[in-house]
Amino acid sequence: MTNMDILFDRVAAKGAVCLGLDTSPEYLPESLAARFPKPAGAVFEFNRNIIDATADAVACYKVQIAYYEAMGLDGMRVFAETLRYVKAAGVPVITDCKRGDIKASAEMYAKAHLGAGSDFESDFITLNPYMGLDTLEPYEPYLERGKGVFVLLRTSNPGWRDIQGLPLAVGGKVYSTVAVKIARLGEKYMGEKGFSSVGMVVGATDGGAIDADAAEMLRNALGGTFFLVPGYGAQGGAARDAAYYFKNGNGGAVNSSRAILTAYQSQPDGEERYAHYAREEVLRMAKDIGDNL
Amino acid sequence: MTNMDILFDRVAAKGAVCLGLDTSPEYLPESLAARFPKPAGAVFEFNRNIIDATADAVACYKVQIAYYEAMGLDGMRVFAETLRYVKAAGVPVITDCKRGDIKASAEMYAKAHLGAGSDFESDFITLNPYMGLDTLEPYEPYLERGKGVFVLLRTSNPGWRDIQGLPLAVGGKVYSTVAVKIARLGEKYMGEKGFSSVGMVVGATDGGAIDADAAEMLRNALGGTFFLVPGYGAQGGAARDAAYYFKNGNGGAVNSSRAILTAYQSQPDGEERYAHYAREEVLRMAKDIGDNL
Repeated sequence: MTNMDILFDRVAAKGAVCLGLDTSPEYLPESLAARFPKPAGAVFEFNRNIIDATADAVACYKVQIAYYEAMGLDGMRVFAETLRYVKAAGVPVITDCKRGDIKASAEMYAKAHLGAGSDFESDFITLNPYMGLDTLEPYEPYLERGKGVFVLLRTSNPGWRDIQGLPLAVGGKVYSTVAVKIARLGEKYMGEKGFSSVGMVVGATDGGAIDADAAEMLRNALGGTFFLVPGYGAQGGAARDAAYYFKNGNGGAVNSSRAILTAYQSQPDGEERYAHYAREEVLRMAKDIGDNL
Repeated sequence: MTNMDILFDRVAAKGAVCLGLDTSPEYLPESLAARFPKPAGAVFEFNRNIIDATADAVACYKVQIAYYEAMGLDGMRVFAETLRYVKAAGVPVITDCKRGDIKASAEMYAKAHLGAGSDFESDFITLNPYMGLDTLEPYEPYLERGKGVFVLLRTSNPGWRDIQGLPLAVGGKVYSTVAVKIARLGEKYMGEKGFSSVGMVVGATDGGAIDADAAEMLRNALGGTFFLVPGYGAQGGAARDAAYYFKNGNGGAVNSSRAILTAYQSQPDGEERYAHYAREEVLRMAKDIGDNL
């Protein structure tokens, strides 16, 4: 079983919610933040309670490393502790670090984020392919051991058109050519469930509703690709948009971060019950996606 | 004075060497490594001695964060200590982290790596533009305060052709369109020396000698762009290749890491005098580049 196989089973059993632990100190209930001398401590306490309340309801977690780097060394410690806590809960975890670098450096990133027993060991990481396919090779030994990656294909921010969306001389756009190249790499790492350990990141929004034809074309052309779909919720993507990337109700996980982590803010008793409201939002979102598949 | 102005003055005074502190534990003299219980401690001792021996001879340092992440939390501490040590030596420092993410995450990266007083504060960082121009906006408040960035344009690895080199329907290649867009952003942040705080990364090698016409075209089209030029030395780039990216002897810094850090290995007394031989290699490289400008 690869990690992607495990993720497939989780989506089948729990629904397709990927809960993004992009925990900004600004998201925390004031009463929680006040109990800790430094924001990093409060962030870990918050993450721990969110994970306890949602571990049986999500497909996976995604930890955006930027939020932890912004807290410096304390933040990196909480990043490591959060990954460890998710692992102990038995839920797949994606480190969203979007690395992309020459081979020698990529080897180091692979060791850092996919290496057995490393402080930052994760089940999956996100990768940026801009520097070329040779920059993905150092991750292959880890794919052989069942780890997974999600390569950026067509992202959820409005600026995706600036480079990913450029029309090519041979026809198609930059991202469509990238899709073909990454899929070819992925064919070497197919799991038992029909999906490769090389997944891709595709947005659930183009700023507004996505281009349904383009999304369906990607889904049809990339039958063995598991999609990580950001952009739902706070970024404006809807479940019906994310649904284009699914295949027989699986093969995708839809990320939401802020909308889940801050769901408590609209509730009168939210400060005390923030984890409960995060869970309610996960369940609502899982149903919303499920209803649209 | 922006940081790019300061870097310009350093290149004028010291030559164009950017020393890459991509310090793999494998590069360390055995006798040094043996004195420390963990690799991270030995790496910092090595960096410290290398910086002491070369601070008056280099234009700047570049710290590749991947090598530090690979050592986990200990490595991140050494990363922070190395940045602090370079800052105390009064030499400009570039964090090579190639970040690129949606605005909310990019704001966090900007705070982490360019924020005043943060653990990982640096003078410059490298950025990956693949997700689009909107992902660069969060760095602008820091550019206004004199910080600098180097955006990946045409990298030094063989795979740069896979995406950066794709021919576009409108003519030109992906990287030439990116160059125009990034340069336009850079016009807002011009320094006193005629160079923008938005620099670009261009390789000194294409695997072999670079395409001289393409390099000259970039230099001519991007008169206000300071280039960070990796690929010299261990990656195969020559001084005459790097020279295409200079303008009146300035406007570029050429990075070398491994060839400098491991220069001691070919010397009979290298184990004890590794910092001395690093310095010798810096001086040789500075002269090599200077002779070709």
